Order: sequence, then structure tokens, then C-alpha cells
Amino acid sequence: MTPITIRGDSMSGNCLKVKFVCDLLGIPYRWIETSVIRGETRTPEFLKLNPAGQVPLVEWPDDRVLAQSDAIIFHLAEGSRLIPADAFERAEMLQWMFWEQYSHETAIAVRRFHKTYLKKPEHEIDPSLMKKGERALAVMNDHLAGKGYFVGGQLSLADIALVAYTRWAHEGGFDLGSHPHVREWVKRVEKDLGLSHAA
Amino acid sequence: MTPITIRGDSMSGNCLKVKFVCDLLGIPYRWIETSVIRGETRTPEFLKLNPAGQVPLVEWPDDRVLAQSDAIIFHLAEGSRLIPADAFERAEMLQWMFWEQYSHETAIAVRRFHKTYLKKPEHEIDPSLMKKGERALAVMNDHLAGKGYFVGGQLSLADIALVAYTRWAHEGGFDLGSHPHVREWVKRVEKDLGLSHAA
Repeated sequence: MTPITIRGDSMSGNCLKVKFVCDLLGIPYRWIETSVIRGETRTPEFLKLNPAGQVPLVEWPDDRVLAQSDAIIFHLAEGSRLIPADAFERAEMLQWMFWEQYSHETAIAVRRFHKTYLKKPEHEIDPSLMKKGERALAVMNDHLAGKGYFVGGQLSLADIALVAYTRWAHEGGFDLGSHPHVREWVKRVEKDLGLSHAA
Repeated sequence: MTPITIRGDSMSGNCLKVKFVCDLLGIPYRWIETSVIRGETRTPEFLKLNPAGQVPLVEWPDDRVLAQSDAIIFHLAEGSRLIPADAFERAEMLQWMFWEQYSHETAIAVRRFHKTYLKKPEHEIDPSLMKKGERALAVMNDHLAGKGYFVGGQLSLADIALVAYTRWAHEGGFDLGSHPHVREWVKRVEKDLGLSHAA
């Protein structure tokens, strides 16, 4: 099987989602490290592949190209155990994936980026990001009470999408100690993915 | 067929996406107007239904509940002409839907909200929103050159998701005159949806 090509930044949870799914499902790939912070997603060559200027970006051997982490993993995982067979559960999975991109990543990943990569001191980081991120973690913690996974009692793309940045939440200054169900779920999903614990 | 219940704010493009799909596919529904600006998505009753405190929210007659506009319309449209039968085109459709929520709505809808609903003067609106929105419109305009629709040559959920706020872009201070392919596509999709032209 000719491998697909993933252009991704190893510091980006969005990019690692694609790697996690490939590793789990045994999909062969070639990874081309593409640094956001060094501007490698804004070069003319890259913009020709993805005019939106974003990674991850996946190319298939027949030159088809797909962007957006969650659309990519949905495609890679079609027909696999990572997408629930039940239509309503499949919609619940997508609900969490859209929520992650809108209400979670935009606070938890963004705060990590400001703190860890741009090295901004606390007082220069928009204070609303902490509030928004804490609220997202609280929504997750309430949902996970008594549950092993987000949807349908087993690992799905919803968990993979959500764990990508949640396991690095401490790098953005968030404390999972006050969200114990989230902390346990992170360890569970990291184990499923064969990852060492990030905290 | 017992109607579904949509809790939505008529001023929200995200909420109207759900209405557009129901109207197009003949799905019976009851609409409960729920104002974001009046705090009706943050009441204890509403938060019991959706802890994320967001509309649209759809309830089925058997009490199942789904949030996130794009997950809802994906579920409502499963098996219909609004979702491409080809797996790769389906992924391309999702790619545009995720991009809309991350890179388009967050500038074009947010700027409209500040300008039209919060009545902020121009100098109080984050200047990066205009730049981000213009970039999103340019990406759309380039993609639409020579194309009638976003994916697969026919109307899909990608068009419905993207048109919801694009048709109101002028309310956020954006000028579709400099994005002629987008302007023509808006008219085309509005006609498909039986809507009068918003501009």
C-alpha cells in the first residue's frame, strides 16, 4: 500500500490526531515536518497545496488532498471501529469534534501556544482564555462522570480529537487536578493510543 | 411523524442552518426561539439540556438531544442528496464545515455580532477580525472560480454551512463586491434554499 503523506507540525495536537489514527489503524504514512511558527505553512508552495495555509494536510498517492484534522481522521477511519456504527452515536461523535474545534482548542491550545511557544508572560495573555478553557474542561468532566469514553462506551474519534490538546492542558497553565474524570480519561486514551503520559 | 424540537436564535446563522436543512428535506419541526443575547442559553433549564450553553439544540421525540449545528445537519441529512455518496467528497464536505467553524464563523459572524448586535463603533472592534474574514472570503472566492458549489458539483451541507453567515457578511462590514464568485454562489444557494437575497 503506497503511504499517504502527512504534512504536520509535531507541536500541534491537530496534526498529531492524524498520526494517532494512522498508527492505531495501521495506515502507512510519510510525515513531512512543517513548522507553523517558522512560517512553513505560508510559503507559496504550501499555499498551492492548501490555500487556507493550515496543517495538517494529507496527500493521497493519486494527488487528492484533504485539510482539517477532523475531516481527515473521519475519512481515514470510515468503516473502522473508531466511528460508531449507530447513526445517532456517529452524530454525537461529530458534535464533540465540532465542539472541540470551536470551544476547546480555541482556549486550551491557544493558551498553550501563547505560553509555551510565544513565551508570553501571564499578564500579556488574554484572561478570557483561562475562563473559557476552564469552562470547557468542566463540561468534559461532567460528561465523563461514570463514563469511560465520550460516546457509545468505547474509544472513538471524539476521544482522539479531544485528547490531543487536553493531555497538554498543563502546558497552557490548566490544572487537570480539579477535573478528575478528565484526568483519568486522558490516561485511559493515552494507553489506548500507546502514548506515554504527557503530564 | 412527530416533529423534532429546534431551540434556536433566528439571528444566528448556526441555528438557521438547521432550519434550512429541515425545510429543504421536509423534516417536520417545532422552533422554540431562544435568545443568546437575552441569556436564554445560560438558564439552569437550558444548561440541563445542553451543558455547553449553546444553540442550536435539537430534541427528538424520544428525548435524545444533539448540539452543534454541523453535527445536527449531518445527522438530519444522512442518506439524503445533501451528503455526497462518494467517501472522499463526503470528507471534503466535512473539511469545509470544520473550516467554516474555525476560520470563517469566528471572524465573519463574530464581527457581525459586535457591529450589529452589540452596536460597537468600528474602532472598538478587534482589527484582526476584518483581516481574518477577508482572508476567509478570498479562500472561498478562489475555490469557487469556475464552480457552482463547494463539493462535487452540487448543493451539499458544505454550501449550507458556509452560506449561513456569508449571506450576512455585509452586516459585519464585509464587501462581497470584491469576491464576485462568492456573491454569485450566495445568490445560487439562497435560490436553492428558497430564501430571498439578504444583501
